[in-house]
Amino acid sequence: MIPHTSKKHALALDFGGTKLAAGVVNIETGEISALVRKSTPAEQGAQATLQTMLAAGQEAVKRSGLESQILRVGVSFGGPVSKDRTTVLHSHHVADWDGIRLTDQISQVFGIPAYMDNDANAAALGEWHFGAGKGAENMVYIQVSTGVGAGLILNGQLFRGSALAGEFGHIIVQPGGPRCACGRFGCVESLCSGWALARDGKAALREAPLHSPLRELCAGDLDQISAKTVIEACRRGDAQAEAILQRAFTGLAIGIANVVSLFDPDTLVLGGGVTRAQDVLLRFLEPALQEYLHPLSKGRFVLKFSELNGMETLLGAALLA
Amino acid sequence: MIPHTSKKHALALDFGGTKLAAGVVNIETGEISALVRKSTPAEQGAQATLQTMLAAGQEAVKRSGLESQILRVGVSFGGPVSKDRTTVLHSHHVADWDGIRLTDQISQVFGIPAYMDNDANAAALGEWHFGAGKGAENMVYIQVSTGVGAGLILNGQLFRGSALAGEFGHIIVQPGGPRCACGRFGCVESLCSGWALARDGKAALREAPLHSPLRELCAGDLDQISAKTVIEACRRGDAQAEAILQRAFTGLAIGIANVVSLFDPDTLVLGGGVTRAQDVLLRFLEPALQEYLHPLSKGRFVLKFSELNGMETLLGAALLA
Repeated sequence: MIPHTSKKHALALDFGGTKLAAGVVNIETGEISALVRKSTPAEQGAQATLQTMLAAGQEAVKRSGLESQILRVGVSFGGPVSKDRTTVLHSHHVADWDGIRLTDQISQVFGIPAYMDNDANAAALGEWHFGAGKGAENMVYIQVSTGVGAGLILNGQLFRGSALAGEFGHIIVQPGGPRCACGRFGCVESLCSGWALARDGKAALREAPLHSPLRELCAGDLDQISAKTVIEACRRGDAQAEAILQRAFTGLAIGIANVVSLFDPDTLVLGGGVTRAQDVLLRFLEPALQEYLHPLSKGRFVLKFSELNGMETLLGAALLA
Repeated sequence: MIPHTSKKHALALDFGGTKLAAGVVNIETGEISALVRKSTPAEQGAQATLQTMLAAGQEAVKRSGLESQILRVGVSFGGPVSKDRTTVLHSHHVADWDGIRLTDQISQVFGIPAYMDNDANAAALGEWHFGAGKGAENMVYIQVSTGVGAGLILNGQLFRGSALAGEFGHIIVQPGGPRCACGRFGCVESLCSGWALARDGKAALREAPLHSPLRELCAGDLDQISAKTVIEACRRGDAQAEAILQRAFTGLAIGIANVVSLFDPDTLVLGGGVTRAQDVLLRFLEPALQEYLHPLSKGRFVLKFSELNGMETLLGAALLA
């Protein structure tokens, strides 16, 4: 008989809008024993996505050789989930997810309990247990990737409000600013998310000089422009890219200043793809924080970057219970 | 011998920037047995203010006839207090408060333990126990009076962050907007607080037509203009006052929308002098909330007004322990 305490692993499943990941995680050490990644078959809808993920999860379990030690499945979903965290409310990226009781289906397939939360909450948990937020009492984790979200650790536990707390991407910091995916104008996400930077880069290319780093990086092809292109163009001195990122990270700074005024955290962690360009981000973010942070807030919290190399969501999913 | 359980009263002291209040509160029922009010001798500084309050507290105890049943003193202070809540950090209204260990001094005078918090937190507690927030699990209390603040009840308890959480008045909702008391621009407080409305009313009077409700209400005297004047002028159809309040309560609405996105509360309570003009407030606030609330936030929370007639801070102070 295997003693219960030897079951210190979780199968973690991360449903992203563009990527799926599955891995077997040692929940004491954060070690990932098997990692399987797939592209999200977004255009084929929710059921195809789920089947792809289930296959990836089974592959991860098999490759890990730890099947008997896995006590649960932790699921991160890239979108809002129900208050009881059994059911997907919506995905902005993949059709037909609304109302799917995801934990039931996953639990049945693997024969162990399954637990779910949204990706920002999972990533906040991961960063808090294993990464930059270790030891924090009040921590705000801000994720700037394709979209923008946040996970809140308050008084040493994940705070969910009535279910949808932490919608940092949709606080309005520039009324009358660019249109957001939510239909309103000037949300943080409409300014500094991956999709917003790509949108602004494409608009800039239409008016770009004949020779500019932005134009050269994408060979004049609109479809080649992503947030990465804009960031790299800025590194090469592109004036349009600089203006885009100035506006974007000023918006992020105002959002951070507001969150700090409301939560008075000891630790603020930045994660997500866009924040990996720390050099460019800090060039704009630091002076903007100086300008926009409340005088009393300065020096009251530490600003850190994710320390988990993009694994924070998967690691956090493993901790859900 | 009086059994311990009969001690169900607290002496509550409310240090406001312009008014002081002391009363003996039944902490089970919220009944106030004796209420003594004084003007804050602001120009004479902290020590004179403290002496005035101590005298008021002693008078309240005596008038109540409940001295033997008072188990503690609860203190609300109109400004930030230290993390351990023994010491005043600052008052924006009265000089020389910084660093005064207020609970020690009060405890010595009355011979019972004293507990302190800032006024917005005290008011949130009061409203949550005795008023519009009864039964809420996650409640945001927003106070719009001379200044603007908030108290946060999260997962059924007051949330303080590292000490200064809830600075709703200083979230920026209109970058580049009017200058705030904190030195930055476009904070909620710079738009809709009592002092901001008075400032805007005075500026309007300088350009007011010869016959306008605003001019008539103050008899052309700048010094007569307060937030109340602006609100009353709006009721009488004054176009300048309408424009002032439109901007002010749009700013408040954006702040509320942002707070709702972050906290996902079940209940949001508006209190403080400016919110007592519910007719005028709602005329501008409701359409602005329709415009600025996240689509997913609509219908997820109830918006209420304080039910404690200005006594929420004193009642909440009595609950501090």
